Amino acid sequence: MRILVINPNTTASMTRKIGVAAVAAASAGTEIIAVNPESGPASIEGYFDEAFSVPGLIAEIRKAPDMDAYVVACFDDTGLDAARCATAAPVIGIGEAAFHLASLIAGKFSVVTTLSRSVPAIEHNLVKYGLATRCAKVRASDVPVLELEQPGSGARHRISEEISRALREDRAEAIVLGCAGMTDLASTLAREHGVPVLDGVACAVKLCEGLVSLGLRTSKVGGYAAPREKPFSGAYASFSPAEGPLETAPGKAEAS
Amino acid sequence: MRILVINPNTTASMTRKIGVAAVAAASAGTEIIAVNPESGPASIEGYFDEAFSVPGLIAEIRKAPDMDAYVVACFDDTGLDAARCATAAPVIGIGEAAFHLASLIAGKFSVVTTLSRSVPAIEHNLVKYGLATRCAKVRASDVPVLELEQPGSGARHRISEEISRALREDRAEAIVLGCAGMTDLASTLAREHGVPVLDGVACAVKLCEGLVSLGLRTSKVGGYAAPREKPFSGAYASFSPAEGPLETAPGKAEAS
Amino acid sequence: MRILVINPNTTASMTRKIGVAAVAAASAGTEIIAVNPESGPASIEGYFDEAFSVPGLIAEIRKAPDMDAYVVACFDDTGLDAARCATAAPVIGIGEAAFHLASLIAGKFSVVTTLSRSVPAIEHNLVKYGLATRCAKVRASDVPVLELEQPGSGARHRISEEISRALREDRAEAIVLGCAGMTDLASTLAREHGVPVLDGVACAVKLCEGLVSLGLRTSKVGGYAAPREKPFSGAYASFSPAEGPLETAPGKAEAS
Amino acid sequence: MRILVINPNTTASMTRKIGVAAVAAASAGTEIIAVNPESGPASIEGYFDEAFSVPGLIAEIRKAPDMDAYVVACFDDTGLDAARCATAAPVIGIGEAAFHLASLIAGKFSVVTTLSRSVPAIEHNLVKYGLATRCAKVRASDVPVLELEQPGSGARHRISEEISRALREDRAEAIVLGCAGMTDLASTLAREHGVPVLDGVACAVKLCEGLVSLGLRTSKVGGYAAPREKPFSGAYASFSPAEGPLETAPGKAEAS
Amino acid sequence: MRILVINPNTTASMTRKIGVAAVAAASAGTEIIAVNPESGPASIEGYFDEAFSVPGLIAEIRKAPDMDAYVVACFDDTGLDAARCATAAPVIGIGEAAFHLASLIAGKFSVVTTLSRSVPAIEHNLVKYGLATRCAKVRASDVPVLELEQPGSGARHRISEEISRALREDRAEAIVLGCAGMTDLASTLAREHGVPVLDGVACAVKLCEGLVSLGLRTSKVGGYAAPREKPFSGAYASFSPAEGPLETAPGKAEAS
Amino acid sequence: MRILVINPNTTASMTRKIGVAAVAAASAGTEIIAVNPESGPASIEGYFDEAFSVPGLIAEIRKAPDMDAYVVACFDDTGLDAARCATAAPVIGIGEAAFHLASLIAGKFSVVTTLSRSVPAIEHNLVKYGLATRCAKVRASDVPVLELEQPGSGARHRISEEISRALREDRAEAIVLGCAGMTDLASTLAREHGVPVLDGVACAVKLCEGLVSLGLRTSKVGGYAAPREKPFSGAYASFSPAEGPLETAPGKAEAS
Repeated sequence: MRILVINPNTTASMTRKIGVAAVAAASAGTEIIAVNPESGPASIEGYFDEAFSVPGLIAEIRKAPDMDAYVVACFDDTGLDAARCATAAPVIGIGEAAFHLASLIAGKFSVVTTLSRSVPAIEHNLVKYGLATRCAKVRASDVPVLELEQPGSGARHRISEEISRALREDRAEAIVLGCAGMTDLASTLAREHGVPVLDGVACAVKLCEGLVSLGLRTSKVGGYAAPREKPFSGAYASFSPAEGPLETAPGKAEAS
Repeated sequence: MRILVINPNTTASMTRKIGVAAVAAASAGTEIIAVNPESGPASIEGYFDEAFSVPGLIAEIRKAPDMDAYVVACFDDTGLDAARCATAAPVIGIGEAAFHLASLIAGKFSVVTTLSRSVPAIEHNLVKYGLATRCAKVRASDVPVLELEQPGSGARHRISEEISRALREDRAEAIVLGCAGMTDLASTLAREHGVPVLDGVACAVKLCEGLVSLGLRTSKVGGYAAPREKPFSGAYASFSPAEGPLETAPGKAEAS
Repeated sequence: MRILVINPNTTASMTRKIGVAAVAAASAGTEIIAVNPESGPASIEGYFDEAFSVPGLIAEIRKAPDMDAYVVACFDDTGLDAARCATAAPVIGIGEAAFHLASLIAGKFSVVTTLSRSVPAIEHNLVKYGLATRCAKVRASDVPVLELEQPGSGARHRISEEISRALREDRAEAIVLGCAGMTDLASTLAREHGVPVLDGVACAVKLCEGLVSLGLRTSKVGGYAAPREKPFSGAYASFSPAEGPLETAPGKAEAS
Repeated sequence: MRILVINPNTTASMTRKIGVAAVAAASAGTEIIAVNPESGPASIEGYFDEAFSVPGLIAEIRKAPDMDAYVVACFDDTGLDAARCATAAPVIGIGEAAFHLASLIAGKFSVVTTLSRSVPAIEHNLVKYGLATRCAKVRASDVPVLELEQPGSGARHRISEEISRALREDRAEAIVLGCAGMTDLASTLAREHGVPVLDGVACAVKLCEGLVSLGLRTSKVGGYAAPREKPFSGAYASFSPAEGPLETAPGKAEAS
Repeated sequence: MRILVINPNTTASMTRKIGVAAVAAASAGTEIIAVNPESGPASIEGYFDEAFSVPGLIAEIRKAPDMDAYVVACFDDTGLDAARCATAAPVIGIGEAAFHLASLIAGKFSVVTTLSRSVPAIEHNLVKYGLATRCAKVRASDVPVLELEQPGSGARHRISEEISRALREDRAEAIVLGCAGMTDLASTLAREHGVPVLDGVACAVKLCEGLVSLGLRTSKVGGYAAPREKPFSGAYASFSPAEGPLETAPGKAEAS
Repeated sequence: MRILVINPNTTASMTRKIGVAAVAAASAGTEIIAVNPESGPASIEGYFDEAFSVPGLIAEIRKAPDMDAYVVACFDDTGLDAARCATAAPVIGIGEAAFHLASLIAGKFSVVTTLSRSVPAIEHNLVKYGLATRCAKVRASDVPVLELEQPGSGARHRISEEISRALREDRAEAIVLGCAGMTDLASTLAREHGVPVLDGVACAVKLCEGLVSLGLRTSKVGGYAAPREKPFSGAYASFSPAEGPLETAPGKAEAS
């Protein structure tokens, strides 16, 4: 089984860190390939950055169309819906992955993310997924994404303090770390606080493995149908949906 | 007052039709400039197409930074959140515009859109905006977007039949037309069915005029803050947020 | 275009202040007529006062049946549903007007109103309109309505302090002023706090202008249908719905 | 124990029918006084009629201030919030009474009311009370209120047919009759359909008896506080809240 | 009229206290029989304890099948759904009873219960009943259930302090006491805090009396249908649903 | 890794079928042990049957305390909350498992279960889990549980017809089979209908494997805390929570 883990930003050191976490979570027979687009923002902090990471994300999927599953390794689940249209293989966002698994081991969880500007996008996702009622609060630690890459930035300390507040004030029973760049902190913080602390990268890998081994693939009825054949112009001409393999495969053949 | 009306797809005939509707709705002192990106999909039917229209949409905003307001003229409100980060001037999506005005003249409305694959995105928007409880049902007429540009396609007839069903089965009190390409059908359908029929392009123009004349601009506190300074790589390098006018203008100065 | 702005309480100084705000917001070609009923409460603070202002509100509409639109200038949107039954022209409440426009320029807003006894009615309206999820919190400043009319009451200071709390504690991105009597404070408070501060009177005028110029009128299918012909007794005999112009005008002719 | 049952419309025959139902439901030691206002609409069918029945409703409460409890005998629960401000004794609407008791004996109920124009008001009440999730559907039988007073109108047959549809299509487990004028039909329809059929008049009487015997009275903290002292003008001068018994009684003394 | 009040835990002193409260609330003609199972937990504090009290609860109902109504006297409404399947007579939980009556005399209420581990179950019930929007907050006083039975434990003081916080921080207008063991504290706390304080035992008795006197019984259509005939094995063989009186009584005969 | 799959009813043939499905879904290194209680109902169809299966379910967990994870193999997720209190290892219900995985591969799913009396319990679970907005409809096929064990009963045909209705009427994009006894039908029905069809047994096994391999265990803060030490009487004395291993292990040590 091969899983493509796509960091939608262009910071290679973060891609490596995500890859390490994904490999650590993967089962023996699973091959992890961690990539990031060439074009796009160095980090994703808010809606504007998100917009410029999606074409690169889709490009990575098209470059590796034979993967068994794909992980979108940005906590905003950037471009997840578009990615699901681009392939019939399962595509899992690390945000949704953590929300779903947290819901299976705790009544309520809180999210601790980076900057407050990212909170609304995460809150919208929770509502869209249906899991908003399971989330006590989305909290910002005021740590910029790239500071997580810098040793000695004090980032871990500020995140830990926000977790303490979540446990005390929100009645949270588990914590979801709200950034792919926090993936290396989960186990330490879990030990420190005595509650489950979930990293979305690891969660997404396990959910991909589960879906693939059950033969479950994205439904092609409804919003995730393959894109209709049409011309894309200019810079995006190469993305024009065509009557290729995806289109000619009828809905039935694509289902599990 | 100048309003940039951006059709996020690349079909110029649709841009012209949208421009005509916007001009018809605009007040005497309002100048309408209707544009579309050079790069991107010929029509937007689902999440995949959406993803490739957003960079072009943002590019159009950056090419015309001095507008008083911007309209995103795709019913999915494609890229609306990112666009709001890109400027402090008001940005209105035609979907949200129609939903808000319909809520002021009817208890419940139904949406009649093009293809069923677009329904989930519209439903997500309604939930995000808070107006899902005001919408009785989002209905697909099974008319592809570009067929609306073809005389004699029977599109108007199928849309009218779906409106009849909405009035009979959903207890809808008003109808929202769910595609920018339907903008020329609103008044005929309203007369035919005896209920308000709303076209988002016209609604968005009036909401822009209202906000601009009240001096109300997008809040720069929270999710719509100007993007943080950082490098964008490759094809998107020119979009890198910089410490330019938008960044140096402090939050306070940007507010109404 | 003529808009009747109805202050549903009987305090003429407040009617004048509301009229000034409405005129300031109106476009060149719009005539504003600001009125208040002769009978009813001096201010509206809670459900009891509301009940006695609605017949007077309807009376004002019936005295001026040829207006292009009507504004209900009490933040509780007192009698809005009944007013919509009394005419096919648009009727806009200043509460809903501010909520809708705030939703177009901010992810979340907080309301700062007068007394805590008014909070439940405002919360109910938000739920009914669908916009409760867009409102972070409805806050009381503990300033009685008529104190807003008294220079030197310290009212502005207490409202400003409550705004500070809303920005700090609620993550509000914009502020809605929760009383028609606060209409003259909006621009000062916006400058002071660096976020959009919305006054419902101005918002309602612009929404009326927009709806009228688009030819959009209240749907007469469903809850806002013209009242059925029947006798009203005693003090309300003159309000008996009759087979007059409103009744004979078929639904179709009333739609946009 | 004395309960004032107020029919907020002016049709005396309906008041008598309501009184008979209330007496039938009342316990041995309970005295029922059924009244209706002198001024107001002959029946309440929609928001417009509602507005003109509330002052008369409040007048009836003020004429009989020593009652132990009050019932608002219109299914829209017309003026219920204002009535709760006018007295510290319990005030129960027949709509809410039926919704609450139905929720105790069935998972889901459907409402069968008179005209479709009344449906939105009932739906709003259900959301406001919190019980919308317990209601499968609000259905109109297209029977005008006063037709219920005419023998041979076929009203009972049309209501019964709508109940059949509710059981078949809504998975309703109980039926709430949506008009005070249907109070005499409940037991027959229950036998006919083999499910609980609830009449709000009877339900409200029992809830009043329960609250009174437990010494529970309306909370005077928050939205139901006694109205603040202020002048009411013109026709409503006599309703001016004054520093009388209600005002001087401190909140604490009013609580159970 | 005979009402069986079942304390689902095995602590006889609590059963006696509950019985006293029930008798105090009951009308003259109502006989209260207070019982508890022989098998099960000494107190119910969380989901685990709940599970072992339900068979005993059902056993008590089957021992006394001729009662007119049944009260489940644990604030979690333990086993309420199963109990409703076991009889066609009304079954009322003390939690739901208090929530419903509080909703009739206050806009919002807060719950003050014993331990924080019980909060999630109460919150789930509120959502299931539909009344979550009426509850400002479920608060734990950190008083274990059996400490309520010990004079001098300081329990009353800690509960009173939590009520003060609810009134100050939650804008609660009434208080619901969240444990059957607090039944003797309601009137003192109401006087002390000047707001309605509701004890579920008393509320449930009055709701039973009301339903019984109206002839309203649990609907046997849907989730509360009598259990299907089938063998139960081992320790529960005697509970096997059989074609006995409950089964042969057709749905129609069981309805009101 | 060892997973105990507990069929909470006493029908051994169903336990065997469930075991086969669990083994088929399990990874190479996973040992599946499928059991059922000795005492309890032969099938679980509604709340009454549920109540008598929970003690047996807990007994099975206590008999095998060293398992790495536990599956509750009844679609109602019978006793899931109590089971989570009884162990710190993950416990997954087959209903929730299918709901969560379906939400990762489809926008909306419908459930096809056995009898209509089971629908309310499933709907309550969906609301409690937060995923009700992802479920288009819970449908009953009117196939009793034990009929699924009888070849030639026509059960598969009726389920398939209900799936067709779900796809046509609900806009469902995936189907969740609503009974552990349907586990052998999933792949055939998926091929037949061309959409993902999910069996909860397989889904639960994969989720257990994922959680265990990530070291994620049930949070012991909040509702799933280990039961407090106290005496259980009579038939349940052996279940009395004691200061044993579970109690002495502090919360911190139990977390991942």
